[in-house]
Amino acid sequence: MVHHGELSVATRGRGTYEITREVARIAGESGAREGLATVWIHHTSASLIVCENADPSVRRDLEAFAARLVPDGDRLFTHDAEGDDDMPAHVRSVLTQTSIGIPILGGELALGTWQGLYLWEHRTSPHTRRVTVTVIGA
Amino acid sequence: MVHHGELSVATRGRGTYEITREVARIAGESGAREGLATVWIHHTSASLIVCENADPSVRRDLEAFAARLVPDGDRLFTHDAEGDDDMPAHVRSVLTQTSIGIPILGGELALGTWQGLYLWEHRTSPHTRRVTVTVIGA
Amino acid sequence: MVHHGELSVATRGRGTYEITREVARIAGESGAREGLATVWIHHTSASLIVCENADPSVRRDLEAFAARLVPDGDRLFTHDAEGDDDMPAHVRSVLTQTSIGIPILGGELALGTWQGLYLWEHRTSPHTRRVTVTVIGA
Repeated sequence: MVHHGELSVATRGRGTYEITREVARIAGESGAREGLATVWIHHTSASLIVCENADPSVRRDLEAFAARLVPDGDRLFTHDAEGDDDMPAHVRSVLTQTSIGIPILGGELALGTWQGLYLWEHRTSPHTRRVTVTVIGA
Repeated sequence: MVHHGELSVATRGRGTYEITREVARIAGESGAREGLATVWIHHTSASLIVCENADPSVRRDLEAFAARLVPDGDRLFTHDAEGDDDMPAHVRSVLTQTSIGIPILGGELALGTWQGLYLWEHRTSPHTRRVTVTVIGA
Repeated sequence: MVHHGELSVATRGRGTYEITREVARIAGESGAREGLATVWIHHTSASLIVCENADPSVRRDLEAFAARLVPDGDRLFTHDAEGDDDMPAHVRSVLTQTSIGIPILGGELALGTWQGLYLWEHRTSPHTRRVTVTVIGA
């Protein structure tokens, strides 16, 4: 059995946006008891991560780390057609995930206790981001 | 066909732990001749990598690189509830993998000659880590 | 349904090599209308990325960023059996992808408008790289 579901995430600019519940809902709709849910983001300047979901300071520190590792406006970058955050958004995306495959066990996404699934918007301005969830299972 | 297997890995603290054989065993138990084995780690402070499996110096250098890139106790980090290695463990996990999908060809995990699959413990103290392998195939 | 296809990519040394068309061809040959195409590279010194496919300066900047983040000949590294670019190639591979799972929707790889799939050769000398595409679908 193959089932697809789609999300549209309206971001308010750079930052992490939890999509765990929406992905779990699509996995539930598929009716699969056992299988795999693969999440895909259709962009190269926003990405996916699995991150600690209890303390928001984790994601704030993650953002601070990314900003230091890949500084906006870095003179190394020549590609700045859309601004200082253009090339850093591509680098951050390459260093994180475009697809993540999560097991479905007993009809549920088998996330660990502290695991949340996040869309990471790397552009400073708001964007609408498209995510597809592909469920394969039985 | 969907088949799940689970590993429990007792780590002795920070470092890489090879799980290639255990994942190959689960792939074998599934009976799949052709398919995909997706490995998932249920944590956000330990992760998965595919790495050179012949010379241990590769993984030692990798550890040294990670320690320099994401220093324990970095003043950038505010999240240190569990110690100096708390936030670095989350960052290292985000920069590597929570899931990896490996082809099964002719009943075997199709790893390259020098590819090993490793659990990377990012916390300095020992932990018990849960890994699920989902095999989809025929 | 499970279908495998294989690519052999002759690289001319360090750089990115687009494989979108070849992966799309294998997805098409599978006959799957709905499913998942998982791309796997059988190496630990070359990797896979999804990257902006319109402006080549994005991939040039990405290369410059990687060269600065993981310098060839860095004194941190002890593993240099194959040269100054040996260990950096392993680190770059670990920080990017060995497998990527892409949805197939309506018989087509569901890539975003600006998404291209690239093999990233991290060694400075030419290599022949093996890639397997596993299609699971209906």
